[in-house]
Amino acid sequence: MQDKAVAFTLAELAQLLDLRSVGDSSKNITGLATLASASPGDLSFFHNEKFLADLKKSRAGAVIVAPAFADACPADVLISDNPYLSYAQASRLFEKVSQVSQGIHPTAVIHQGASIAQDVAIGAHCVIEDGVVVGRGCRIGANSIIGQGCEVGPDSLIHANVTLYHGVKLGARAIIHAGVVLGSDGFGFARDGDRQIKIAQLGGVEIGNDVEIGAGTTIDRGALDNTVIGDGVKIDNQVQIAHNVTVGENTVICGCSAIAGSSRIGKNCIIAGGVGIINHVTIADGVTVTAMSLVNKSINRTGVYSSGTGISETAQWKKNIVHFRQLDKLNSRVKKLEKPKSLK
Amino acid sequence: MQDKAVAFTLAELAQLLDLRSVGDSSKNITGLATLASASPGDLSFFHNEKFLADLKKSRAGAVIVAPAFADACPADVLISDNPYLSYAQASRLFEKVSQVSQGIHPTAVIHQGASIAQDVAIGAHCVIEDGVVVGRGCRIGANSIIGQGCEVGPDSLIHANVTLYHGVKLGARAIIHAGVVLGSDGFGFARDGDRQIKIAQLGGVEIGNDVEIGAGTTIDRGALDNTVIGDGVKIDNQVQIAHNVTVGENTVICGCSAIAGSSRIGKNCIIAGGVGIINHVTIADGVTVTAMSLVNKSINRTGVYSSGTGISETAQWKKNIVHFRQLDKLNSRVKKLEKPKSLK
Amino acid sequence: MQDKAVAFTLAELAQLLDLRSVGDSSKNITGLATLASASPGDLSFFHNEKFLADLKKSRAGAVIVAPAFADACPADVLISDNPYLSYAQASRLFEKVSQVSQGIHPTAVIHQGASIAQDVAIGAHCVIEDGVVVGRGCRIGANSIIGQGCEVGPDSLIHANVTLYHGVKLGARAIIHAGVVLGSDGFGFARDGDRQIKIAQLGGVEIGNDVEIGAGTTIDRGALDNTVIGDGVKIDNQVQIAHNVTVGENTVICGCSAIAGSSRIGKNCIIAGGVGIINHVTIADGVTVTAMSLVNKSINRTGVYSSGTGISETAQWKKNIVHFRQLDKLNSRVKKLEKPKSLK
Repeated sequence: MQDKAVAFTLAELAQLLDLRSVGDSSKNITGLATLASASPGDLSFFHNEKFLADLKKSRAGAVIVAPAFADACPADVLISDNPYLSYAQASRLFEKVSQVSQGIHPTAVIHQGASIAQDVAIGAHCVIEDGVVVGRGCRIGANSIIGQGCEVGPDSLIHANVTLYHGVKLGARAIIHAGVVLGSDGFGFARDGDRQIKIAQLGGVEIGNDVEIGAGTTIDRGALDNTVIGDGVKIDNQVQIAHNVTVGENTVICGCSAIAGSSRIGKNCIIAGGVGIINHVTIADGVTVTAMSLVNKSINRTGVYSSGTGISETAQWKKNIVHFRQLDKLNSRVKKLEKPKSLK
Repeated sequence: MQDKAVAFTLAELAQLLDLRSVGDSSKNITGLATLASASPGDLSFFHNEKFLADLKKSRAGAVIVAPAFADACPADVLISDNPYLSYAQASRLFEKVSQVSQGIHPTAVIHQGASIAQDVAIGAHCVIEDGVVVGRGCRIGANSIIGQGCEVGPDSLIHANVTLYHGVKLGARAIIHAGVVLGSDGFGFARDGDRQIKIAQLGGVEIGNDVEIGAGTTIDRGALDNTVIGDGVKIDNQVQIAHNVTVGENTVICGCSAIAGSSRIGKNCIIAGGVGIINHVTIADGVTVTAMSLVNKSINRTGVYSSGTGISETAQWKKNIVHFRQLDKLNSRVKKLEKPKSLK
Repeated sequence: MQDKAVAFTLAELAQLLDLRSVGDSSKNITGLATLASASPGDLSFFHNEKFLADLKKSRAGAVIVAPAFADACPADVLISDNPYLSYAQASRLFEKVSQVSQGIHPTAVIHQGASIAQDVAIGAHCVIEDGVVVGRGCRIGANSIIGQGCEVGPDSLIHANVTLYHGVKLGARAIIHAGVVLGSDGFGFARDGDRQIKIAQLGGVEIGNDVEIGAGTTIDRGALDNTVIGDGVKIDNQVQIAHNVTVGENTVICGCSAIAGSSRIGKNCIIAGGVGIINHVTIADGVTVTAMSLVNKSINRTGVYSSGTGISETAQWKKNIVHFRQLDKLNSRVKKLEKPKSLK
């Protein structure tokens, strides 16, 4: 959904992206596309040698390339030391403008005790409760709810159908996608015989600057202290973060991962999709956990970690899991075979 | 929640379902039930021999059966070559009418630039943005949001609290359940040192005809090209589909599965519940993946695939996973034992 | 987000919690905190000997302790036979009052055929459809939707952006968090060649008393009979419960678990996070399933069950999964080694 009214000359793009251009600097560029699907009015990018064949036959009007590949490119080029980063920067130039209209929609329900900056956009049927502070430049999508005493940092974008319970604090430039729930009760009970007695969740949720949270993600409020998400953290769709978790700066958490209560994730980690992290564990800075792994104990050293068995044909898998369930016995049998004959 | 006002004679049912009836064709049938719970006013169905005892003692007024079982049935029968399919068709006759009232609710906010067919139903507090096209016969539940430039094909049913970002295209006869989010940003960043720089997601979401999408499912828009869901695809609850995924015709994806970016799923596949599929893999047509498997590489041949270990008692499991983590060593130990004695 | 206006003397707390106090009974307590973070105005609790060092240096004004630790505590004490349960009870005293204002918001759309008790609170933009019964003392958050014929038991709290399809029955004292969807269609189809024909879902959802359901959880309506959740069941965030599942009393289901169609979970079970339970299985009373396990067959005996491999460094894991996929062969090789030499 690129806004086709957008157009730049190659010279303008070079200036906006702080890159050197080679070729027809007056050429008009009206879109951004992959090497394979670009047409002559499009800018493209080359960041991985496995796409070299695509580069050589691309119809793109211009391509962002590293210096070493400038000559290999049949099109005009923008030369970048980090073409993928330059692509990210270029993508912002071609983005369609805000899905949220400017101004406050007349159907929004805004408590008189809320403090709303002058230049915000608030969509239809939003509810902004008492004591909320919405910073300058914020945009809030239709049907979203900002509970009592929440703070939304400047230039944040909250999409439609988002729910913030009371007392959630969002830093600057947050991007919160549709269906997100922040500040729901942590899952805490004390047993009284067979019954579970609810523990009121008195903590809050604190989210740093430059955090993005994907559609349908839920982050619970703390039991007593807060749940804390550091600056620059990026969270994908349908992630679950339980009460009193802390996530360090710039960590990336991919879709459908879940972090149980009170666990502490370091800085600059990559948690791939579908990962489960049990409660009360610590993960060091710079750890990568691969897809669908279960982190069932703390990880104290930087590195890459995995669990699971990888995919097999089911017929073979069924035979193997029988033996997995007897691995302890198999090990004992091998041990016995290893003993010198006289000791058997 | 069957509408008890609904009633058919056995003869009417036979005609509506295009089946042959045997028995009292004037008998009144007012509901649909399992063999075990049916009462004399109910229609039931027999599709699996493991329910033969239930068939023989069922109190149902009539039963849909295959020809070979017509005589074994104590009740009147509707004879079908595919009783389960006939049951599916019968179920539609006993369904309660739409949860969405007819007409456009006065609290809905509809942009003047939207194009809405005459005979649609739009619930309270819906928001329909500029450039949206809603086809004839569509019903949209309360508090749902249809973003700029979306297209909703004819006879589609969008339940309550659904969010469509801008530029999402739905085919005819879509069924979109509550809490679904379509067209949220794909999860794409370029690294700039430790920081993640957002890549604007300029693609869209294209959904074919006859697609059903379960509650809480999220489908991201593409980075540059579109995310594409083929005709007849059925997606269960809380599924996550990342940017630029393509899903082939008539594939079924069960609850809580997740497909990472740019992966391509074939036609007529069955992806069971809780499956994870990593990014940039291809799955051939007609593949079945069993529950909670991780597809960590492409699957090029039709077949059934699994991963995981199956369930064990935890005490035994703890012993086994110790050995799993030393399987490579165990294999070496066996190799050593296999060597002829003189070479040891 | 504790309401700092709340204050109790130690004597008042002792009376409210039915505990014996030792110390300055006139001391003012204005909050609840962990041993490590408590200040002199706070109540804390000691329930686990691993926090003994924290207890000894805590600055808390008073601490809930078991009788045996009363002397070890440097602060005033409330003596409890079950300090964790007493903490749960105390937490309710310090809870911020309802996020939902009293009364019915003028923007709520309430069908004249709905029956609403006198003392309920209904938030902005709620939609309450025909035939709904809302019991006394209920609170319903903004933008929530209660479909035709639903029943909401007395003293229930439904947070914002919740969707109840038609005919859902909630018992007394339900707590339903934001983004929950109850009563969406079960995922049922009959094949007609390659096409999937939808089976209308005619059953309902029945939820007992004292049930809590976490943010983003989805529970499908039954195909013919109902989906049934027993009294006292506690369900965390982003859980998926398919059609015709039954969950027994007081069972606890942690975040991101999924239960496939028609499975029966016993009473007093603990289903940890990220667990998958396939369809048509039965789990006995009192079973615990650990995190991210796949229950791929019925569990007939009380006990603790697990699956998966536990986490390893990826380099080692890659070597191990190669051998996992050949476990059947490895077993055969060991068998061969075990044979008496003359038989080899």
